[in-house]
Amino acid sequence: MERIEKISSWLKEKDISSAFIHSKENVFYLTRFYTEPHERLMGVFAFPNEEPFFVCPLMEKSQAKAAGWAYDIIGYEDHENPWDLIAEALKKRNLKLSKVAVEKEAISLSRAEMLKEVTNGAELVSAEMKLNELRLVKDENEVRILREAAKLADYGVEAGAAALKEGIAEIEVVAKIEYELKKKGIQGMSFSTMVLFGEKSGQPHGNPGSRTLEAGDFVLFDLGVIIDGYCSDITRTLVYKNANDQQKDIYETVLEAETAALQMSKPGVRIGDLDLKARGIIEKAGYGDYFPHRLGHGLGISTHEYPSMSHNNDERLKEGMVYTIEPGIYVPEIGGVRIEDDVLVTADGAETLTKYPKQLTVIS
Amino acid sequence: MERIEKISSWLKEKDISSAFIHSKENVFYLTRFYTEPHERLMGVFAFPNEEPFFVCPLMEKSQAKAAGWAYDIIGYEDHENPWDLIAEALKKRNLKLSKVAVEKEAISLSRAEMLKEVTNGAELVSAEMKLNELRLVKDENEVRILREAAKLADYGVEAGAAALKEGIAEIEVVAKIEYELKKKGIQGMSFSTMVLFGEKSGQPHGNPGSRTLEAGDFVLFDLGVIIDGYCSDITRTLVYKNANDQQKDIYETVLEAETAALQMSKPGVRIGDLDLKARGIIEKAGYGDYFPHRLGHGLGISTHEYPSMSHNNDERLKEGMVYTIEPGIYVPEIGGVRIEDDVLVTADGAETLTKYPKQLTVIS
Repeated sequence: MERIEKISSWLKEKDISSAFIHSKENVFYLTRFYTEPHERLMGVFAFPNEEPFFVCPLMEKSQAKAAGWAYDIIGYEDHENPWDLIAEALKKRNLKLSKVAVEKEAISLSRAEMLKEVTNGAELVSAEMKLNELRLVKDENEVRILREAAKLADYGVEAGAAALKEGIAEIEVVAKIEYELKKKGIQGMSFSTMVLFGEKSGQPHGNPGSRTLEAGDFVLFDLGVIIDGYCSDITRTLVYKNANDQQKDIYETVLEAETAALQMSKPGVRIGDLDLKARGIIEKAGYGDYFPHRLGHGLGISTHEYPSMSHNNDERLKEGMVYTIEPGIYVPEIGGVRIEDDVLVTADGAETLTKYPKQLTVIS
Repeated sequence: MERIEKISSWLKEKDISSAFIHSKENVFYLTRFYTEPHERLMGVFAFPNEEPFFVCPLMEKSQAKAAGWAYDIIGYEDHENPWDLIAEALKKRNLKLSKVAVEKEAISLSRAEMLKEVTNGAELVSAEMKLNELRLVKDENEVRILREAAKLADYGVEAGAAALKEGIAEIEVVAKIEYELKKKGIQGMSFSTMVLFGEKSGQPHGNPGSRTLEAGDFVLFDLGVIIDGYCSDITRTLVYKNANDQQKDIYETVLEAETAALQMSKPGVRIGDLDLKARGIIEKAGYGDYFPHRLGHGLGISTHEYPSMSHNNDERLKEGMVYTIEPGIYVPEIGGVRIEDDVLVTADGAETLTKYPKQLTVIS
């Protein structure tokens, strides 16, 4: 069934008169058309028993068609109010909407008010869980793109490792990595590239700056790319020149935790148990206070998407899910290690899409 | 008067019980604390007759204080619901809110619903025009930063021009520019860097790709940086190796239009007249159909902010306003030229913050 038809069936089942879906991520998911409309309105109207229509700036209409949208498109010019055209389209189809599903976390109050106006006060309910659920299991084509995105993330770490030399600043390495990836034609980085040296790797949310590289530093890379609308996200931690015993101990603990959560991954496993498994290993090694975040997050059109890989998540893994496993230990003043893979659940286990080596690497 | 006090006076004057301001740009404007909280709630509550308070993730509390916020801060941990803490804070202060000003274009429906819940159904009105008005005229410190940001934008064009050579691809030049700027320690680019060659410069919203540079190409750069929370935005168009008569004619027309709008800029002038002036010159030269966008936009914490420099804007220029002037002519198949400066209105005229030369430059 087409994605948009799944929305129609859901509306029918839940007795909702329409869905208005307008975030660029979900528009891409439903229409295969990826664009950043900035402040301009764009969105899909779907119905239980009618064909959907798409609203977008007129100058984007032909691209939306080319991307494969086969239904009506209402294109508006800058001097027109798209809500007038929407009201007209609803009237022409004789549609009276009493309940409309929207992305409540994404739609602005002013747009929600416009929607209420053109529907004469429809009740607005949430469409978000349904969209999360649809996007959760990736199809073959999505996996193919995610695999390619992960490969480019591997390449980003390679480029970063190759740039390391005594005295180079974190931000110079960031620039080098992004330069190499942009030359490969990526759509963009999926988030701000992180390169942290030495004690700065001990900040889980540190910002790359002018700290320069010295022998004995941890070097933490966290980066990802967007291609064809999908994201990757990898973390690797290397050591420059020489590693002391404490660094080795931290590293091996994180690697053991990451590997254990990965090996547990297969259809049917409770998501929260992956976090508990990794956390248990880190706690047992005495670093429990230094792992302050969840194990990971879903990955796809958004870098962080449903589900949250946290200890209290009672949902179960399914074949085709893609998520990150990224335990870390951050010791203030000393430094930190995080190891992160993009993971695909297969019929009877899991596969990492990111392949950069994980044994402790000392760059000399 | 402090910025936050100006909000309090406005609330008093308009008889509004509170303002809840949560977009990262306006939070930065009011608190001087710049952060990207992603999906986490952050915001300022201001009142007509009470001290304001700030809500943010606990791990950001000390940074907010360090940035200079001198009032209460409610920090919450990931397992807490910030709205519960907000309800408690309002109760403790014995505040009953019947009307709350919010950023209607920015606040999500789900947050607006939470706000209504903790206030027992307060009416939500718009705070946006007031904030636009406050941000419109820049103070000395803001001008200092905008000047620095513009200087770095000039440097970006220099770096791009230096990278030009036969056969180089647009995206390689983008990567080079961003590499050079990141080495300078910028916070980020203020938007996706645009480098377009030849006929591709004829697309006002073109995307840099694998098009390689040839003799006789226009080379259009449009880029900007963010430093200390403020943006720059420059466009320059060069010619590679040799320019033909048509290219020269297009270039000189755009330059004449840009210069005329710049020379007209001074306090008291109707904003729309700048657009009409530039447009008149382009129309007279026979290119009227090829200038499809407004003259420019306000510039500051956001790359595109209030006011819109369009022909129908009846507002008047004021000393301290900063905006872009960026006329363009885009001839399909042939190519396009845009020239854009960041402009500061002074007591009796205007000054460009961007200084990269504007006479037709042929790179050889």
